Amino acid sequence: MNAVELIETKRDGRALSAEAIRWLLGAYTRGTVPDYQMAAMLMAVFFNGLDGEELAVWTEAMLHSGEVLDLSAIPGAKVDKHSTGGVGDKVSIPLAPMVGAAGVKVPMMSGRGLGHTGGTLDKLESIPGFTTGFDAATFADLLEKVGVVLAGQSERLVPADRKLYALRDATGTVPSIPLISSSIMSKKLAEDLDGLVLDVKVGSGAFMKTVESARALASTMVGIGAAHGVPVVGLLTPMDQPLGRTVGNALEIVESIDVLRGEGPEDLTEVTYRLGMEMLVLGGISETRADARRRLEAVVSDGSALEKFGEIIAAQGGDTRVLEEPSRLPQAAHHLELPAQATGFVQSCDAYKIGVAAMRLGAGRRTKEDVIDPAVGVIIHAKVGDQVAEGQPLATIAWNDEGRLDDASPLLADAWQIGESRPEAAIQVIEEVRA
Amino acid sequence: MNAVELIETKRDGRALSAEAIRWLLGAYTRGTVPDYQMAAMLMAVFFNGLDGEELAVWTEAMLHSGEVLDLSAIPGAKVDKHSTGGVGDKVSIPLAPMVGAAGVKVPMMSGRGLGHTGGTLDKLESIPGFTTGFDAATFADLLEKVGVVLAGQSERLVPADRKLYALRDATGTVPSIPLISSSIMSKKLAEDLDGLVLDVKVGSGAFMKTVESARALASTMVGIGAAHGVPVVGLLTPMDQPLGRTVGNALEIVESIDVLRGEGPEDLTEVTYRLGMEMLVLGGISETRADARRRLEAVVSDGSALEKFGEIIAAQGGDTRVLEEPSRLPQAAHHLELPAQATGFVQSCDAYKIGVAAMRLGAGRRTKEDVIDPAVGVIIHAKVGDQVAEGQPLATIAWNDEGRLDDASPLLADAWQIGESRPEAAIQVIEEVRA
Repeated sequence: MNAVELIETKRDGRALSAEAIRWLLGAYTRGTVPDYQMAAMLMAVFFNGLDGEELAVWTEAMLHSGEVLDLSAIPGAKVDKHSTGGVGDKVSIPLAPMVGAAGVKVPMMSGRGLGHTGGTLDKLESIPGFTTGFDAATFADLLEKVGVVLAGQSERLVPADRKLYALRDATGTVPSIPLISSSIMSKKLAEDLDGLVLDVKVGSGAFMKTVESARALASTMVGIGAAHGVPVVGLLTPMDQPLGRTVGNALEIVESIDVLRGEGPEDLTEVTYRLGMEMLVLGGISETRADARRRLEAVVSDGSALEKFGEIIAAQGGDTRVLEEPSRLPQAAHHLELPAQATGFVQSCDAYKIGVAAMRLGAGRRTKEDVIDPAVGVIIHAKVGDQVAEGQPLATIAWNDEGRLDDASPLLADAWQIGESRPEAAIQVIEEVRA
Repeated sequence: MNAVELIETKRDGRALSAEAIRWLLGAYTRGTVPDYQMAAMLMAVFFNGLDGEELAVWTEAMLHSGEVLDLSAIPGAKVDKHSTGGVGDKVSIPLAPMVGAAGVKVPMMSGRGLGHTGGTLDKLESIPGFTTGFDAATFADLLEKVGVVLAGQSERLVPADRKLYALRDATGTVPSIPLISSSIMSKKLAEDLDGLVLDVKVGSGAFMKTVESARALASTMVGIGAAHGVPVVGLLTPMDQPLGRTVGNALEIVESIDVLRGEGPEDLTEVTYRLGMEMLVLGGISETRADARRRLEAVVSDGSALEKFGEIIAAQGGDTRVLEEPSRLPQAAHHLELPAQATGFVQSCDAYKIGVAAMRLGAGRRTKEDVIDPAVGVIIHAKVGDQVAEGQPLATIAWNDEGRLDDASPLLADAWQIGESRPEAAIQVIEEVRA
C-alpha cells in the first residue's frame, strides 16, 4: 500500500477499498503514515466524501484502533445518547438517571466543552468530588451496580480518533459529514451498545446550521449504526436559543435536578423525554413511545429518577447533598441583571452569542488548555415568545472576574431581540431520523 | 494570521488575500506553519484553484522566499526556455548554444530526471568533467563570458519551492495547474529574465495528457509572466512518441550534437527551431519569426552553434573532444536489437513505455536516490509513419545489466504498434499560447 496512491484515489473521486482504508488508518495510528499525508487525505475526503461502504469500513477501522468494551456479561440492554453539542445542552444529565431508573443500562461516555458549547463532564465535575475517569473494569462495574455510568472517553478507546480529531482541528477538515460521523460512531460503537439515540442540534448555536445538513449527518450515522448492527435513532432539535434557562456548569446541574423533580423548563424537559422515549424503546423496555413516556413520567413523579441520580453521584465519588442543598455547588461571587431595552415579545435569544459570552465569563474553554470556572454563567429569564417590559431582567449574569464580565457583557447585551408581535411557538423536535 | 482560517477560506472557495498568501508561504518556508497544514491547503488549492491575482502573489511570495538573481549588469536580453518534460526531450541542449550563437543570452537552469522523463542536467553530466552547480557570481560570470550557462537550480533560489514540491510529491497534490505554474514560474522569474519560452508537452508520455489541460497550463504561466512584466510564449508540442531517436543520457548528447550540425532528426530539429525562433524574437534579435529562423539556420550551417556548445562545455569543465569523438561519452557494454513482429507502418511508438523502459535500464530514476547509468538507453529506428518489415529492428537497446534489461524488455516489446495503413504525418507544434 502506498499512501500517495490512496490520496490520489480519493482526490480523483474514486472509492477506497476496504483493505486500503484499514491499512491507512492502522498505519496512521501507528505513525508510519505521517500527519501531512493524512491531512491531504482528510481534505480530499472533505471534497469527495466517503460512500456508505467506505464509511462503514472507515468507522470499523477507527473502532478497532484500540480497546473495545465488552459489556456482554452485564444483563440488560445498553443504550447511550450522543448530542452534537449546543448551548445550555445539559440533557444527558437528567436523561441518564431517568432512563436508568426506567430499567435501561446507560454506559454514557461524554466529552468536555470547547468554544461556545459546554461539555457534560465539565458540568458533572462542578459537583464536589464527582469523578469521570475510569478504567474499563471500573466502568463495567459501575454500570452493573448502578445501571448508569457517566464517564469521560477512555484513552484506550479509539486512539485513531484522538489523533485524527487533533489533525482535523488543525487542518480545516472538521466540518465533513463522513469524518464527523465516523468520529462519533467509532467511539459509540466501542462502548458495546445495543442502541444509540442521537440529538443532532440545528441552528445558529449548533455545528449544523441547516436542517438539511443535520438530516444528512443524522442519516449518515444511522447508516453506520445499521452497518454495524446497532440500531440508531436521530432526533433533530433546535439550537437557535439556549436549551433550558441556564448556561454554565454548576447552574446547569441545578436545572438538571429541577428536570428530575419534574420542575424543569418546558423545552429542556420535552427534549429529555423525547430522547428518553427512544432509549426505552431501543432498550426493549417499551414497545411504544407512548408507553415509554408514561414510564419516564412515572420515574420522575415517584422520585426514583432523582434517587438514581443520587446513586450515580455517590458511586462516582460526588457529594449527594447537592441534590437537596444546591448551595453546596460552586457559587459565583457576583450577580448582575441584564435589563430589557424595550417592551414587547422576545423574537430571538441568540444561542451562539450567549454561548460565547458564557465561555468568556469562564464557563467554557477558548482553547483546550483553559481552566473552567464552574460557578459562572448566565441564567435566562426571557426566552423566545416571552413577553417583557422595558427594564425587566432578561437574564442574570453570574460572574467572578470583572475583566471577564467586561468581555462577556457586550455579547449578552446584543443577544436578545425584542419586537412587537408574538413569534410562533418554538417546537422541540424538528424531525426524527430512523433506519 | 491563522493557518486554519486560511485553509478554511480556500476550502470554501473564497480568495486568499495577498497578505494571507505572503504570510502563509513565508511561515511555511520558515517552518512555523507545519507540513500538515500546508498539505491541507495544497489539497484545497487542488480542488478550488487560485485566481489570477492570488496566483501572481503566490508566485511572487515563492520567488522572494530566497535569493533572486540580478543579471542587470550583463548587457543583452536574457531569455530562457522551460519544458514540462518528456521522453527523449533533449531540446535544451542544442537550443541553448544555437540561440546563444544567434546573440541572445541564455541563463538556463534545468532539473534532473525523475520517473519516465529524463533531465537536462543528467544528460549534460554524461559529458566527462561537465559541471552544473554554480554560485550566483559564477553563474553570472559564465553568462557574461560565454553567453550561455547550463546550470542546476541554485539551492538559494526559491527555497519555498523545494519544500513545497517535496510535500506535493508526498500528498497527491502535484497535478494542480496553479501549483505547477507557480512552481515553474517562481524559479524562472528568480533568474531575472527578459523573456521565457515554454515547451508544454502533450500526450501519453507527458504530464499533460490533453491539449485542453496543456493549454490551461500554458496560459496560466503566460498570465503569471504578464503579472510580473516578463513576456512568456508557450508552445504545445506532442509527446505521444519520444522526441528524436534517442532516449538515454549520453545517447541524447550525441543526438543533440547532430542537431547542432544540421543532421538531427526532423521532429527534434523542428521543435528546437520553433522554440529558438520565439527566443530570438523575445530577445529582440529578430523582429519576425521568419527572420529568427534564418538566423538559427545560419548559426547551424556556419558551425557557430556547434562552436558555442564547445565553448559552453569548456567553460563548464567538460571534455570538448566529445564533439568530434562521441566514443568519449560513456558507452554501454551491450547492444540488443528489437525486431518488428510484423510488416507495415508504425502506428504508435509509446513514449511512456519507452520512457519507463529507459528508466529501468538505468537511464532514469525511480526515486530521487537512484544513481543514473549515463551509457544506457534506447536508440529508436522506427517512429510513427515509418514503414517496417517483419524482423527489421525497431530499436537498439544499449544496456549494461542483464537484470535491468529483463526488466525493461517486456515494456519495449509492447511499445510499438504496427498496422497496414500509413498514419497521418505527425505535427511538431500543436498550438502557440501568447499573452
